Amino acid sequence: MILTIQCPDRPGIISATTQAILESNGNIIDLDQHTAVDANLFFMRTTIDTSRNFSLSKLTSCLRTLKDNFNLDYWLHDTNTPLRVGILVSKTSHCLYELLLQYQSKHLNCIIPVIISNHTDLKPIADYFRIPFVHITTANGKVQHEQSIQEILKEYDCEFLVLARYMQILSEEFTTKWHHKILNIHHGFLPAFQGAKPYHQAWKKGVKIIGATAHFATVDLDQGPIISQDIVHTSDKCSIDDFVHQGQDIERKVLLSGLRLVLDKRVFIHNKRTFILSE
Amino acid sequence: MILTIQCPDRPGIISATTQAILESNGNIIDLDQHTAVDANLFFMRTTIDTSRNFSLSKLTSCLRTLKDNFNLDYWLHDTNTPLRVGILVSKTSHCLYELLLQYQSKHLNCIIPVIISNHTDLKPIADYFRIPFVHITTANGKVQHEQSIQEILKEYDCEFLVLARYMQILSEEFTTKWHHKILNIHHGFLPAFQGAKPYHQAWKKGVKIIGATAHFATVDLDQGPIISQDIVHTSDKCSIDDFVHQGQDIERKVLLSGLRLVLDKRVFIHNKRTFILSE
Amino acid sequence: MILTIQCPDRPGIISATTQAILESNGNIIDLDQHTAVDANLFFMRTTIDTSRNFSLSKLTSCLRTLKDNFNLDYWLHDTNTPLRVGILVSKTSHCLYELLLQYQSKHLNCIIPVIISNHTDLKPIADYFRIPFVHITTANGKVQHEQSIQEILKEYDCEFLVLARYMQILSEEFTTKWHHKILNIHHGFLPAFQGAKPYHQAWKKGVKIIGATAHFATVDLDQGPIISQDIVHTSDKCSIDDFVHQGQDIERKVLLSGLRLVLDKRVFIHNKRTFILSE
Amino acid sequence: MILTIQCPDRPGIISATTQAILESNGNIIDLDQHTAVDANLFFMRTTIDTSRNFSLSKLTSCLRTLKDNFNLDYWLHDTNTPLRVGILVSKTSHCLYELLLQYQSKHLNCIIPVIISNHTDLKPIADYFRIPFVHITTANGKVQHEQSIQEILKEYDCEFLVLARYMQILSEEFTTKWHHKILNIHHGFLPAFQGAKPYHQAWKKGVKIIGATAHFATVDLDQGPIISQDIVHTSDKCSIDDFVHQGQDIERKVLLSGLRLVLDKRVFIHNKRTFILSE
Repeated sequence: MILTIQCPDRPGIISATTQAILESNGNIIDLDQHTAVDANLFFMRTTIDTSRNFSLSKLTSCLRTLKDNFNLDYWLHDTNTPLRVGILVSKTSHCLYELLLQYQSKHLNCIIPVIISNHTDLKPIADYFRIPFVHITTANGKVQHEQSIQEILKEYDCEFLVLARYMQILSEEFTTKWHHKILNIHHGFLPAFQGAKPYHQAWKKGVKIIGATAHFATVDLDQGPIISQDIVHTSDKCSIDDFVHQGQDIERKVLLSGLRLVLDKRVFIHNKRTFILSE
Repeated sequence: MILTIQCPDRPGIISATTQAILESNGNIIDLDQHTAVDANLFFMRTTIDTSRNFSLSKLTSCLRTLKDNFNLDYWLHDTNTPLRVGILVSKTSHCLYELLLQYQSKHLNCIIPVIISNHTDLKPIADYFRIPFVHITTANGKVQHEQSIQEILKEYDCEFLVLARYMQILSEEFTTKWHHKILNIHHGFLPAFQGAKPYHQAWKKGVKIIGATAHFATVDLDQGPIISQDIVHTSDKCSIDDFVHQGQDIERKVLLSGLRLVLDKRVFIHNKRTFILSE
Repeated sequence: MILTIQCPDRPGIISATTQAILESNGNIIDLDQHTAVDANLFFMRTTIDTSRNFSLSKLTSCLRTLKDNFNLDYWLHDTNTPLRVGILVSKTSHCLYELLLQYQSKHLNCIIPVIISNHTDLKPIADYFRIPFVHITTANGKVQHEQSIQEILKEYDCEFLVLARYMQILSEEFTTKWHHKILNIHHGFLPAFQGAKPYHQAWKKGVKIIGATAHFATVDLDQGPIISQDIVHTSDKCSIDDFVHQGQDIERKVLLSGLRLVLDKRVFIHNKRTFILSE
Repeated sequence: MILTIQCPDRPGIISATTQAILESNGNIIDLDQHTAVDANLFFMRTTIDTSRNFSLSKLTSCLRTLKDNFNLDYWLHDTNTPLRVGILVSKTSHCLYELLLQYQSKHLNCIIPVIISNHTDLKPIADYFRIPFVHITTANGKVQHEQSIQEILKEYDCEFLVLARYMQILSEEFTTKWHHKILNIHHGFLPAFQGAKPYHQAWKKGVKIIGATAHFATVDLDQGPIISQDIVHTSDKCSIDDFVHQGQDIERKVLLSGLRLVLDKRVFIHNKRTFILSE
């Protein structure tokens, strides 16, 4: 069981919540708490061993009381009930493969009930990993396209989405409905090259590192809260094609890292930025 | 104020200690706790804001009771009373400079009351940074040499030692007296090349990375608990001299990192290994 | 076309060979030459554009003359005739997947004609990527086992081998026959923990980084020339299982990197070590 | 002796220049050549051992002929006559210290004849390292300020400038006069936060990495050709102050790295970007 708490800081929150866990017969095996003093923001993540007479109803009851007393938000996550994560893809496979390989080898604590795409190219991958694949055409317009996606997500009980190089811009309606529940991988370089052909721009600029950013998708594309970032050093003997290829390696690494942080309940959001309590 | 706790794991420790902090009018602004399940070891580090009516005597009193109830070891560190860290050097300056520059710019929360050396080469550096420098000859033998060092350390009230490329082997008597209170930087490569001229050996082997390790000095040299490690990638166009030079850059970085972890009270020791609660 | 040259250093080699390339109507688009002064070793790698009236026979004829004049060894590699690389595996899939994904996406310039294993576990992967899979039992003893492997390698015209976590120790006869033609991934930690259960040892030692090494397999296991090395920083909150998992991520990265260096003809060997001319 | 060549690509350049080196009794101990096919740009760097009857006049004479025949630009650098590098600083010391420490330990192949500043804060550092320090006030306006700097640079025979956190914007006249001869360190984050207080902006955005960029200073500040870049991973437990401090560590590292590349003659410039031939 993982418990996360976020609220304005005031004394006594840890004491009260850990007392509640104790009274519920839970044993804390990991607790990470931090107060961002600049923002007066308290956030905490704790892993609870529930193997000895643990009472969920007792803990829930205590937390409800604390919620009122401390004006706190809390989330209880049963690690035996993994998040159901739908994946949206287009034609590019490297991110999808990375997620599915980790999933297959049990290194990704989620359920992937469905893969949705606006193309059929990646269906064989889904078949190989035995995950339902749904092709939804864009031929009938954006509204119809997104409506169909919503239906599929509902049908497969998805709770969270990963855009694994999904090359369609989502509407405000869609991103609002899935607020802070869509993980995207930004395939651009750092410093960001906006607009078309980012790799061409970066090569022309002669950058020495290329990077990728995993972030929550919001209506302002690529402006959502950042979750994970990393870079790779490049050589000036590289061609533009080499840049694209190296970019893919860092993209799949960063997307995986970002998803792991989400699944591990390490991501807190406040004032349009994240606070990560990393391992 | 930083409080650290280490003990065999059992339920209720966090709840009881955070309750004690609350009753002392301390406000926790950072708490990191982890139980190494493989070793049934509980360790915790918490930063307490003591700016509002905090009662140290109350906290101390509570902790004493908890110590008995939970069979726990605890340490209370007043961050306004920095650790007094003596530095031992020989002829090489890169590690000493790194420590003193960070010290001068207030990025190292300790007091460096004295620099001790078996050579006089580095005295000008100590003078520049206005830190007492004591030269202790090895001419009268090892026993006398170490006895003189002990006296100087006592005279300057040193509580902890850093061997910043100090090229003398310490006796068992010395390392026992300063058990887990001596930080050393191992300048060898990874994988370790033991014996003479490690850089020559490494070059002949054609290693692609070179590294450094900061660890507690014990009587079995280079076998003490590891605190910090890092590496740098090398090129096969490098000569042996290049290896030495690159090694120095990683040594000073790792030694600084190791000392910071010690000063931040992030280092726990159990069964000859450390557990670091990193930021 | 890639030309590599290795020999004792003496003046005039570059001038003579680049003149030969010019006379053959080749255009050099990349040339990297280095003399390891410590070893008086000359090594050079050059990429030749052969698209305009290039005469291979002319170049070969010139090089033969230079070989005698300069006592040099040279290798001409037609980049349109990729190396045929057989893969040996056992039960673990992460390295195999990494190689096959890069192979499938045309980012590995070789032919993989066959995958050989002493188990059948990974056959579905070979099937998915449409590469012949041959299971060779160890039930009839090591000699028979290796002989069967040799036959398969001959049948599929393999020129080079990759041990992608192949868990059998190869005989001296085998490694001698494939001298410097077998790439292995060492899954151990740095500093090396020899013997059984390296991850348990490393965890007990409290290492802060774990690494992997790609090297040529020789009869002294894990003592062959090193080709590629990398590490990942670990957290002391990691369990032994986490170590194993993180180790796999760095293993597949290093094995891929090592194979790329081999396929790009960047690896030179002298006195039991490699010299890599990296990009 | 280091020879660098840059020109449009055509066959025969390497052959002709290495022949010229041979005829001058030079022995090439390192040669790195690359053609950026996308830009049809040939660039080459070679290190020549001149210890045996080398004739500079012969080489110079040959190169002059080649210059006309191949339309190439070449530069001959006598490694025994190091570049004279003036340093401009303001109040911040971390970059200056890094350069001077490497300089003192002979790991920076240049002469630093003078340190110029618009403040007096860093004079003690210059004194300690025994380098002339000239304070030039900005009280008489920018034109007078820059004119005084020019005079000092002339007096001390400076050939190249490093802005080691020099907090004045240089005029177009100044940057034009020292075109591609001023190295600057950009202390901002990646992705770039322009305008005031970049660290505050970056913290608010919740970036997970912070970086620095060494580049040639041009009139469009921070738009000059990039030479070196690196990043450090940050923790969300960091305050804005921590960001500043970590930023300084990466700034000094990147500035040093950039200067080394310049001094090693590894930097080529074409179409407003650099091509680095790294080790």
